[in-house]
Amino acid sequence: MNEDLKQKILSRVKDDLVKIETALAENLDPYYDLVADIARHILFSGGKRLRPLLTILCARLCGYNGDNTEKFSTIFEYLHAATLLHDDLVDGATMRRGRPVAHSVWDNPTAVLVGDFLLARSLSIASETGKTRIIKVIAGITENMSQGEIQQLYRKGAIDLSEEEYLEVIRRKTAVLFQGACRVSAILADVPGNKETALSDFGLHLGLAFQMADDLLDYTVDSAALGKLVGADLREGKLTLPVIYALNRANDGDRERMIRIIQNEDFSTEEFESLITLLHKYEGIDYTRKTAAGHIQRARQAISIFEDSQAKEILLDIADYALARKM
Amino acid sequence: MNEDLKQKILSRVKDDLVKIETALAENLDPYYDLVADIARHILFSGGKRLRPLLTILCARLCGYNGDNTEKFSTIFEYLHAATLLHDDLVDGATMRRGRPVAHSVWDNPTAVLVGDFLLARSLSIASETGKTRIIKVIAGITENMSQGEIQQLYRKGAIDLSEEEYLEVIRRKTAVLFQGACRVSAILADVPGNKETALSDFGLHLGLAFQMADDLLDYTVDSAALGKLVGADLREGKLTLPVIYALNRANDGDRERMIRIIQNEDFSTEEFESLITLLHKYEGIDYTRKTAAGHIQRARQAISIFEDSQAKEILLDIADYALARKM
Repeated sequence: MNEDLKQKILSRVKDDLVKIETALAENLDPYYDLVADIARHILFSGGKRLRPLLTILCARLCGYNGDNTEKFSTIFEYLHAATLLHDDLVDGATMRRGRPVAHSVWDNPTAVLVGDFLLARSLSIASETGKTRIIKVIAGITENMSQGEIQQLYRKGAIDLSEEEYLEVIRRKTAVLFQGACRVSAILADVPGNKETALSDFGLHLGLAFQMADDLLDYTVDSAALGKLVGADLREGKLTLPVIYALNRANDGDRERMIRIIQNEDFSTEEFESLITLLHKYEGIDYTRKTAAGHIQRARQAISIFEDSQAKEILLDIADYALARKM
Repeated sequence: MNEDLKQKILSRVKDDLVKIETALAENLDPYYDLVADIARHILFSGGKRLRPLLTILCARLCGYNGDNTEKFSTIFEYLHAATLLHDDLVDGATMRRGRPVAHSVWDNPTAVLVGDFLLARSLSIASETGKTRIIKVIAGITENMSQGEIQQLYRKGAIDLSEEEYLEVIRRKTAVLFQGACRVSAILADVPGNKETALSDFGLHLGLAFQMADDLLDYTVDSAALGKLVGADLREGKLTLPVIYALNRANDGDRERMIRIIQNEDFSTEEFESLITLLHKYEGIDYTRKTAAGHIQRARQAISIFEDSQAKEILLDIADYALARKM
C-alpha cells in the first residue's frame, strides 16, 4: 500500500522532479570547484526533494504561473542541505542516507563553510523573488532552525524532556521549513491572506507529522534500511515522542529499566529491543502514530478551502505518505 | 599621532557608538537565554563597531534621514559576529580580543548554531528595509565570505600562494563586508548610481587596506597588545602579503630559511624574530604598507564626489586610521 502510494505520487511529479534536479544543479553557482564538490555531496545523495516539490505544488494550487518556480523552489532544498551539513556536525553523525557525512569526508571547518555558502545561496535566490516578505520568512526559518537545534543540543539526554518541549524543538528544526516552502508559494502568487494561512498551516502540520514519523522510524525499521546505526537518535541522546510518552506512563521498575538503557550510549541490540518492547507496552509507538495522524488530518483540513485539482490531490497523497512511509 | 587621530574620531562618533550599542542589544531578540549569552560573548567583547559606524556615516553622507539607520547598521555587526564565530572554529583559534573564543567556552556545535542564528538575524533585519537589492548584497557578502574562508583553508600553508590569490581571499573574506556596509546606505538613501558606486568603492578599498594593516600587525606588534599568540597567522598556516612578497624576492638561502620557519608550527620566538628581519630585508613589510596606503588613497578618492561635511571628514579620518592603527 505504501509502495503503491509512493509510486502513484512519483508518477505524477516525475516531470517536476526532473526540473528540480536541473534547477538544483544550475543555481548552485559557486566560485570554486571544491565548494561545488562538497555541496553536491550533500545535495545529490538521494534526497526526496520534498521541500521544493511542496513549493511547486502549492504554487500550482495558487494558480501561479511564474517562470522561476523551479528556481525559487531550490531555496528550500539549499536551505535544507545547509542545515544538514551543520546538524550532522552538531550531532556528531557519521552516516547520512547510507553514505559518510560531509564533515568526515572533508572536515568540520569545510562542512561549516559550505553550509554557510548554501544558506547564502538560498537567500540570494530568495532575493530574486523581489519580495521582502519572502526573505523575512526564509530568515525566520533559519532563526528557528538554529535555535531548535540549540535547544535540542542543550536538552540532550534530559530524561525529563516534556512533550511540549519536544513539539517546540521539532516545530523549529523541521516544521518551519515545510511551512515556509508552502507559504512562500502563496506570497509569490499574491493570493488572499486566508489562502496563505491555509498553506502555511498545511506545511506546519505536515512538517510536524513528518518529523514524528521520522522519529518513529528509529524504533520501527531496521538500521540497514535507514542507512544509519540502530537506535541512532537515542545514542545521540535525542529523546523523541515514543520514548517521552512511554517514560511518562511506565511503572517505576520499567521506567528505571528504560532510563538505564537510554543513559548507556553503548547499549546492545538486545537492550534496544527490550526498550522497543517497553515503548509498545506503554503505547509510546501508538501514541506517536496517532498524534502524527492528527497533524496530517489538520494539514488535509487546511487546504480544503482550495478547489479540487491534481495539485491538491498530490498534496493530499503526500500528506498521507508522510505518515505511512517506511523510510 | 595615531592615538590623537583615534581620539579625534571617537569624540566625533561618540553618540553614534552609544546608539549602535543600544541597537545591538535591542535587536538580538533570541528565543532562548542561552543563545543570547553566547551571542553576547562574541558581540560585546570590545569590538570597534567599525562596520555599523560606516553604515551610519555613509547614510549621513547620502543625506539619509530614516528612523532605522542604527537598527539597519546592526546587520553588519551581526554578520561580522556570525563569521567570527565560524571562522574562529575554522581556524582553530583559541583567543580573540584577549578572551577565550566561544567554541572553547561552549563547544563547536554551539558556535556553529549561534553563528547561524546571528546570520539569520542580520537577514531578518535586512528584510525590514523593504529593499530586495539590500538582501542581495547581504547574501552576496555571505557567499563571498564563506568561499574566501574555504579558499584560505585549502591553500593553508601553501608556499606558492600568489599575491593575486591573497588579494582574492582578503577581498572575499573581509573587504566585501566593508563594501556592503557602505553600499547599503546608498541603497537605503536611494541616491544615484554614481554615488552608490563611490561608496561601494570606498568600502572595498578601505576593507582591503584594513585587512592588509591587520595582517601587518602579526609582524609589527607584540602579542600581548594583540591579545593572541605571537605569529598567530603563520602558526595557522596563513601566508599574508608581507611573507608572500618577501618569499618572492628572497635569495635561495634566505628563502629556504623562511620556508623552514613557516613550515614549523612550533617555531620559537627567536626564529620568528629572524623571519621578521628577513621580511624587512626583502621589503615585505614596506611593500604591504605601501599597497595598503594605495588602497586608502583610492578609498579617499572614491568619496571625493561628495560635498564636504563632517560625516565625510570622519570617513576620511577612519580611512587614515585604518592604515595607521597599532591594533
